Formats: sequence, structure tokens, C-alpha cells
Amino acid sequence: MERLEGQVSVLAALQAGRRQFQEILLARSAGKYELADLIETAGKRGVPVRRVDDAELDAHGKSHGGVVAVAQEKPLARAEDIYRLVEESKTPAFLALFEGADDARNLGYLLRTAEALGVQAALVRRRAWDLDGGALSRASSGSFERLPVALVGQDLAELLELKKRKLALLGAVPQSRKTIYAADLTRPLVLAVGGEKRGLSAALRDACDELLSIPTAGGPTSLAMTQAGAIVLAEAARQRAARR
Amino acid sequence: MERLEGQVSVLAALQAGRRQFQEILLARSAGKYELADLIETAGKRGVPVRRVDDAELDAHGKSHGGVVAVAQEKPLARAEDIYRLVEESKTPAFLALFEGADDARNLGYLLRTAEALGVQAALVRRRAWDLDGGALSRASSGSFERLPVALVGQDLAELLELKKRKLALLGAVPQSRKTIYAADLTRPLVLAVGGEKRGLSAALRDACDELLSIPTAGGPTSLAMTQAGAIVLAEAARQRAARR
Repeated sequence: MERLEGQVSVLAALQAGRRQFQEILLARSAGKYELADLIETAGKRGVPVRRVDDAELDAHGKSHGGVVAVAQEKPLARAEDIYRLVEESKTPAFLALFEGADDARNLGYLLRTAEALGVQAALVRRRAWDLDGGALSRASSGSFERLPVALVGQDLAELLELKKRKLALLGAVPQSRKTIYAADLTRPLVLAVGGEKRGLSAALRDACDELLSIPTAGGPTSLAMTQAGAIVLAEAARQRAARR
Repeated sequence: MERLEGQVSVLAALQAGRRQFQEILLARSAGKYELADLIETAGKRGVPVRRVDDAELDAHGKSHGGVVAVAQEKPLARAEDIYRLVEESKTPAFLALFEGADDARNLGYLLRTAEALGVQAALVRRRAWDLDGGALSRASSGSFERLPVALVGQDLAELLELKKRKLALLGAVPQSRKTIYAADLTRPLVLAVGGEKRGLSAALRDACDELLSIPTAGGPTSLAMTQAGAIVLAEAARQRAARR
């Protein structure tokens, strides 16, 4: 079971319908008008809603804003789901791969950005930490609930399979001479963004068809992973809109 | 006096030379080789370095990584400094304005992105919170130390003065029909980005010459302020590079 905190996450999870809910706890102090959408959607889905004291909610977290849900984990997408999504896509496939995000907050921001920019599914390659679905849901403003998210194994088998299916694997790398603006991002593709400390792993770089940089002003400046991801994905979205 | 935590912030502040340092505290447990740059730069600037126990550093913060500096606040840029910078610029002025950032972390990320993308100075319009220079330095990976940062008053006088000096004031607003891609961002300009809850204030929108949106996939998705800022500034940098 996971805890989902906050109205935005809980409503997104109810609407996306990918989790089994046990119950939703609402602060007695929260007005029913401000929570009307949530209460109505929970009713339609048959999820019990219980009014509780603030103290009980506080035991579940610090940023609940009066709403906590207890629900099963959101099932991640399987590799087969991603292959089917690519096959059935009527537009050139647009996937994002995030490797080495430091924490749920950063990964959540990346998922939110990816969904907003039209990415069809996100692939995640983990390092040390486990995915905390509740924290991801919160940090992504609910995008984690809606966007298909699949894990990529250490052997990168899923990526190699996507390459066989004619997707280009393009990696964002600060040192690359070729920039994202000089590349064709309208092709069916997986755009890979790496964590800021180590960037993309050597294995992933080797698997990439092209390595692309975001031009920066130079000097000691650099871009954070969440900002770099936003810029790369926005450029792909821009090129795709211009093509249509 | 402010506390600066972490090697990146402290080294950036030493190199930028805009703060008066009282002293730098280094953990006894930190190796002198990993801190060689810092120790050498402090020596050149005549800043005393004192080795202390971890417990003393822990009293100054949680994310010091063995390095804490005690220094005076970094003086903010004055409006006159910004006007002079604009006048002396050999390229069309490129300023960013951030209004309503929630916290030092988000504003820090925006300053870092702005510096990396070639912004010459950042203007900040505050709401409720005070600028914590130490937290900004840390969150911006040192960009706050190097980039001129000035405050904009509630009456927007500084912006009106910049408009008189032929800078276009362009605001990023989700609902606008005209997109950042349809606008000329190579002009001398101030690009304004608002906080995500309320966006740009009415007063700022009214002052803008144009309001521009970042196209998104629609539905319940949205962009966080730090990501929206990155995308808008990167588009301006892209257009400027293409023009040269």
C-alpha cells in the first residue's frame, strides 16, 4: 500500500483508474465545496471516504493539504505495453528515458514536463533508489498517475528492442558537438536524459544513435537535469508541431 | 552575515568576489586534495580557513558536505547597474524576470538556468518571502554569486524604465494564443516568467508588450515554473544563435 498526499495527486489517481484504492481520508476541517470534485469522483469509483482529524492525516505526511489516500501501487507499464503503444501510435513515437534522477522530486518534475509536452510514455533507468509512487505522484502533480511509466533493465534490452522497431535513441550530453537544434527530432524516437552528476551512463551512450547537446553560455554554468530535460523535450515538440 | 554551504557555492562566491568573507570552515574529515581549489582560492583572497569538527558544521546546516562559509550578503544589483549593463551590451539585451517563485530552491534553479542560457541579469519580483542568499547560492549551484540579480519594486518602475530604453517586455502565460515560437525573441528584451499557482500578476501582464505561451499537450497537464522558464529562455537563446 502507498500513501498519496494532496488533492491533485489523489484526484489524478482516481481519474486515471490504475490503482486500487482502500480509502480516502479527508480532514474534517476541509470544506466540502473545495473538495467537491474529489468526493464526487471517489463516489463514482466506489472508494470509501472518511473524515478524520488533522492529527491522523499528519501521521501520513507533511504536505497532504487535508487529503490522503491509501491505495495499492500503480502498476508500471510492461515492455510489451510500450511496444504496443509504439506500434499503434498514429504519430511518430515520442518516448523519454530518464536515467539517474537523484530523487522522486526531480523524476516527478520530469514526468510532469514529459506529459505536458506530449511524450507518450516514460522509461526510467534506476540507480540506487526505489520508486516511491506516492512521492512521484505528488512531485509530478499527478502526471505519474496518467503517463505510462516503464522500467529499463540494466542490460538495456527494452531499448535495443525499440531500436529494432526503428526508434532512434538520442542522448542529451553536454559535451556533444551536435546540438539538439541541428538534429531531426521528428523521427520516431527515445530521448534520453541523464542525471546531472554523472550524466548518461557509458552503456547508454554506447547504445545511442546520436549524442546531442544543449548549447550553453559556457564557463562554470550548467543545466540541472530537470531543466535540461524540459529543453530537450520542448525542442522535439516544437519540431513536431512545425512539421505538422 | 549569511551561511554558504557546500563547495560549489563557496568556491563560486570566492571567485565572483562580491561578498566579504569572515571565515571558511572545513570539516577535519575532508581531504585536502578534494578541497585544493577552495583552499587555494581562499588563500589568494586572504580569507581565513579553519578546520573544525563535523559537529560544528552540522550546526550550520544539513547539506554542507564539509564546507561552510560565513560571509556578508551578496549585494544585489541596483537598477542603475542594470541600465548600464543594457547600454553597454554589444548584443541585444537579454534579461529574465522571475515573479512569484515559491521558494529559494525554485528561484535558484531559475537563476542557474538563466546563467547557463546566456541571460545577462535576472530581475526578481518578490511576494511573501525574503531572499536567502545562502539558500539561493546553493540551489543555483553558484549562479547567484556570478549573475547580476536585482529586485523589481511593486510599482514596476524599473521595468517601465527598461521599456523606455527600447527593451520589449514579454510575458510567458499559459493561455496566450501566440506562442514563444511565433515571437521574435532576438530583440532586446526582458522575458518574464511567473509562479505556477498564480502566474504573472495582473500588473505585470498589463505592462507586457506581448504575452506568449508554451504549447502543451492539453488536458490536465501543465508545466512547473522552473521548467517553463527553462523552455522560454532556451528558445530565446536558440533564436539568438540562429540569427548570428
